[in-house]
Amino acid sequence: MIERIAILGTGLLGTSVGLALKAAGFRGSIAGWNRSPDQAQLAMQMGALDRVADDAVELARGSEVVLVAVPIYATLDLMEKLSQVLGPEQMVTDVGSTKRVIAEAGMRLFNQPDRAAFLPGHPMAGKERGGASLGDANLFRGAVWLFTDDPNAQRSPRGAALVKEWRDLVAAIGSRMLDLDPARHDELVAWVSHLPQFTATALSALLEEEVGDAPELKDVGGRALREMTRLGSSPYSMWRDIAYTNTEAIERALARLEQRIANLRENLKTPALREEFEQANRFRQNS
Amino acid sequence: MIERIAILGTGLLGTSVGLALKAAGFRGSIAGWNRSPDQAQLAMQMGALDRVADDAVELARGSEVVLVAVPIYATLDLMEKLSQVLGPEQMVTDVGSTKRVIAEAGMRLFNQPDRAAFLPGHPMAGKERGGASLGDANLFRGAVWLFTDDPNAQRSPRGAALVKEWRDLVAAIGSRMLDLDPARHDELVAWVSHLPQFTATALSALLEEEVGDAPELKDVGGRALREMTRLGSSPYSMWRDIAYTNTEAIERALARLEQRIANLRENLKTPALREEFEQANRFRQNS
Repeated sequence: MIERIAILGTGLLGTSVGLALKAAGFRGSIAGWNRSPDQAQLAMQMGALDRVADDAVELARGSEVVLVAVPIYATLDLMEKLSQVLGPEQMVTDVGSTKRVIAEAGMRLFNQPDRAAFLPGHPMAGKERGGASLGDANLFRGAVWLFTDDPNAQRSPRGAALVKEWRDLVAAIGSRMLDLDPARHDELVAWVSHLPQFTATALSALLEEEVGDAPELKDVGGRALREMTRLGSSPYSMWRDIAYTNTEAIERALARLEQRIANLRENLKTPALREEFEQANRFRQNS
Repeated sequence: MIERIAILGTGLLGTSVGLALKAAGFRGSIAGWNRSPDQAQLAMQMGALDRVADDAVELARGSEVVLVAVPIYATLDLMEKLSQVLGPEQMVTDVGSTKRVIAEAGMRLFNQPDRAAFLPGHPMAGKERGGASLGDANLFRGAVWLFTDDPNAQRSPRGAALVKEWRDLVAAIGSRMLDLDPARHDELVAWVSHLPQFTATALSALLEEEVGDAPELKDVGGRALREMTRLGSSPYSMWRDIAYTNTEAIERALARLEQRIANLRENLKTPALREEFEQANRFRQNS
């Protein structure tokens, strides 16, 4: 069984994984590293980590499972470094929000019998702001944790066993697992995650321009407005990497929404408006 | 002081007003009427009403304050009927989501010294579904209740006093009042209420088309997707009247959002994306 887990990146997700594993009774050690050491110290104070390490690669070298929980391009950088020092008795997994680029790197750098295993993962959980302080042992309870594993991965027996054990731990912290092809993953999240985010960003930015100078008027919108703009708080630093690594799928989804809104605008006084409401109602009824 | 209130329309808003008035200690009688009598019976069973009436106009005739809480065109119909039977010792107010058309009718049909007073109102509170069963004594607590009163209203002394007393009751149930010109009201709610609603409708309808046949995939979107599509449940029957009575302002807002999304789409890999996120962040920081 897994005894030593390294969490590289102790922001919201990394810290929450540590807290959730502890809450689920994981008995091994969990060590953490973060680019800003104070976030790792905070994660340890919160009980997510047993210890904090100064060097990500050194920490990984001494661990069986390495969870990389940093933005996508930083994940790719760490994967390059880790592939040079890890061996077939070790496994790396990640939480990146797009998977084609990461899964391709995983097959290129890992998943050979003499190398560490790599399992691409993506927990569909988060908050509109990040940071260790928001870490939550229940963040993954009932959430979907996507994996985009490659059937052509050539893993050592220990590597294959670690992949299975990690999946058991993900189930133990309350996630529902779903396996997808990486390209299908990126297409799907463009619709159900990236499109809602960029819509909220555009709507929030537009409203800032229109009513931003009259803060008391924002209150008029009430709960509906707060909900539709909550994701407007999301940081560019995280979404830039998503925009760069899933550009075409996001462009297609946004273009379709533009057409859909234009069609609704042109039909405010025709029976097509009823059909649009009824189709929207169906989406919610089936949710 | 007001002793007899009639609530015409005991859906979510009408029932919630009854419950909130009772909870705030209103000592007078509250009677209700609804087109579907079972909703009025339910509102009475929930404690929102003291009695249920069969006939809206007869009920109004015997009341001092008449709250009309039905969709916009039904409000206009009732206003026509009420104006013929009410007198200067009575007052009518409403909860319609657009105010230009209703305020104009209010000045035409009421607000003369020998007629009843009319105060156009719009509580910014609601839920994505309606009905008496969702009635909530706290629905208006902390919410904004907009009024678009006309400075040229010619009211009897009792009519003017009733308007003031009704505003005191609205404050007593926890609302914050804001006074606006009717045209400014409709322009403002186009941005902070109607635009978010129609955006959620278009987004939900599009997602139904794209992923509606794979319900398990909706779960992938998690909280963010649920929030951005919750308003997709809103009924056409309510929003049709809004679309018809605030068409131009909604068209302008939707066209601006289309441009904004297109601009974001064309800049997924340019520094303009950072600016868009930062402007969206500012909207939320100031909220």
